[in-house]
Amino acid sequence: MANPISSDPSTLIEAARDGDRVALARLLSLVERGGDGSRAVAALAYKTPGQAYTVGITGAPGAGKSTLTDHLITLGRERGFDGGDQVAVLAIDPSSPFSGGAILGDRVRMQSHSLDDGVFIRSMATRGHLGGLAVAVPDAVRLLSAVGIPIVLVETVGVGQQEVAVASATDTTVVVVNPGWGDAIQANKAGLLEIADLFVINKADRPGARETRRDLELMLDLTELGPWRPQIVETVASTGDGVEALWVAIGEHRRHLIGGGTLDDLRRRRLTREFHQILLARVEQQIDQLMASDRFAAITAAMEGGDLDPYEAADRLLSAWGRPPTGA
Amino acid sequence: MANPISSDPSTLIEAARDGDRVALARLLSLVERGGDGSRAVAALAYKTPGQAYTVGITGAPGAGKSTLTDHLITLGRERGFDGGDQVAVLAIDPSSPFSGGAILGDRVRMQSHSLDDGVFIRSMATRGHLGGLAVAVPDAVRLLSAVGIPIVLVETVGVGQQEVAVASATDTTVVVVNPGWGDAIQANKAGLLEIADLFVINKADRPGARETRRDLELMLDLTELGPWRPQIVETVASTGDGVEALWVAIGEHRRHLIGGGTLDDLRRRRLTREFHQILLARVEQQIDQLMASDRFAAITAAMEGGDLDPYEAADRLLSAWGRPPTGA
Repeated sequence: MANPISSDPSTLIEAARDGDRVALARLLSLVERGGDGSRAVAALAYKTPGQAYTVGITGAPGAGKSTLTDHLITLGRERGFDGGDQVAVLAIDPSSPFSGGAILGDRVRMQSHSLDDGVFIRSMATRGHLGGLAVAVPDAVRLLSAVGIPIVLVETVGVGQQEVAVASATDTTVVVVNPGWGDAIQANKAGLLEIADLFVINKADRPGARETRRDLELMLDLTELGPWRPQIVETVASTGDGVEALWVAIGEHRRHLIGGGTLDDLRRRRLTREFHQILLARVEQQIDQLMASDRFAAITAAMEGGDLDPYEAADRLLSAWGRPPTGA
Repeated sequence: MANPISSDPSTLIEAARDGDRVALARLLSLVERGGDGSRAVAALAYKTPGQAYTVGITGAPGAGKSTLTDHLITLGRERGFDGGDQVAVLAIDPSSPFSGGAILGDRVRMQSHSLDDGVFIRSMATRGHLGGLAVAVPDAVRLLSAVGIPIVLVETVGVGQQEVAVASATDTTVVVVNPGWGDAIQANKAGLLEIADLFVINKADRPGARETRRDLELMLDLTELGPWRPQIVETVASTGDGVEALWVAIGEHRRHLIGGGTLDDLRRRRLTREFHQILLARVEQQIDQLMASDRFAAITAAMEGGDLDPYEAADRLLSAWGRPPTGA
């Protein structure tokens, strides 16, 4: 049954469930490429959602996210949340061609796990996926969950809005900062304070760790928090100091979500957001079709000639489309 | 005729053309707020486009953009491109409430020009504008141009995708970096290499300026460039060193665009992009209406119950909307 050269999604999913990593890699390539293949995978995965718990790791470039992720893989494998378990890592690659080198380096570093069958590491770019990372990553996570992987780490490389949105679309979001004046403030500016369930001060053996902790505590004091106050964990990823405490803190946040019954709410909200993204992408595609049309060319010519302002042009173009139906 | 307390856009525009800054500020508030008022302003401004040349200034927080902008105001006033001229500055404020302090500080700094009637400085946030900065800023620039301001500087505070897009939607885009290992590389990662017409290495009296220049040159060598190779100018904004050379370089890029006949092409492409953003925003608004409907609630319930995957749900929701018309 498990035929690694098949390209049929349901055959591939069955093989991936039986532990076939090549099949899983092919499925993720389908997801990444978007289009009908990705849609077929999403539909199948949705039928058998699985139980994966997802942890997002984000922060500025150079903060030490990859090395931390490396430790979290080990801890997930050895201890898991209820005993050692399989771990998958999605490393989200903003599509800039220039970042390839750094990411490749990170991935090479993570190859310390390459002989472990229970670890699956994958770099992911948007490529052709309609809706970009905001839709492709939830699709990929759902797939990993559907084939039975219980722990999924989502590591983002940049701190652009897209990457932050992706990292925050996980069950527990870990924001990594470094000691030093201003790093906490930069994290705040980048919108990381609102999404953090846990803060890690990595390279905490360097000067300024205490001040950074104080800055973070202060900013948390100034923020309206829900029932969970983000914990702050100090680590030195290069030596492994503090990473066990981080794993414990992730487990505590997980228990908080499960115990409080909020995990389901959180996931439902994420599903609605994903749905919204898909709607948007779908309509955007229709706009692209519209922009390739004769109608568009005629209206644009009128706009460039100064006869229509861009708002009138949009009215004119959309008028024949009608309004969306709103009845049940 | 010029009645400063009027809220009628055409009266306000007439007043602003006569030099009434209060009227101009009111018009920009209308633009910022979005909605019908902003649309009325855009329509009027589009009728009398004006001749403003726009310069975008972007780069990481702390790179010295505000101080540079301050010097560019002075140079624009004293020399202009064809003699000293009026200058407007739009300081684009990413809507995070936390950055308010820094921006306020910057604006206070720029108050050295506050007694000069030929200078108009305005911080701008998105507020309610449909389409966000990507539409609000072109609207604001068009307004400034329409009331007769010949030089508009657009300074962005952050380096998020939105801010970068805004800064690049100008005639000449200036990217500010600082000396030091990695700054050029970070700028590159943030997508700044592709949008730069000029690079400024500010704080060039600090160690590492030469290396940063070399990094930039190398990255430019590795990039497919058009007929214009971005110049690299070294400045020390705090003392004013190099800012005249920067103004000269901006003028050279301007002459390159005008002489090569590419300025009109560039502006036409921007207008098309703006049109696309307006279409997108308009349709997004319709999606929001859709998401508030009974139909949406029913489909979402089916999705949450596991009966529909998000893609099927999107199909179901959009099916009755029909396809956009594409005929002329």
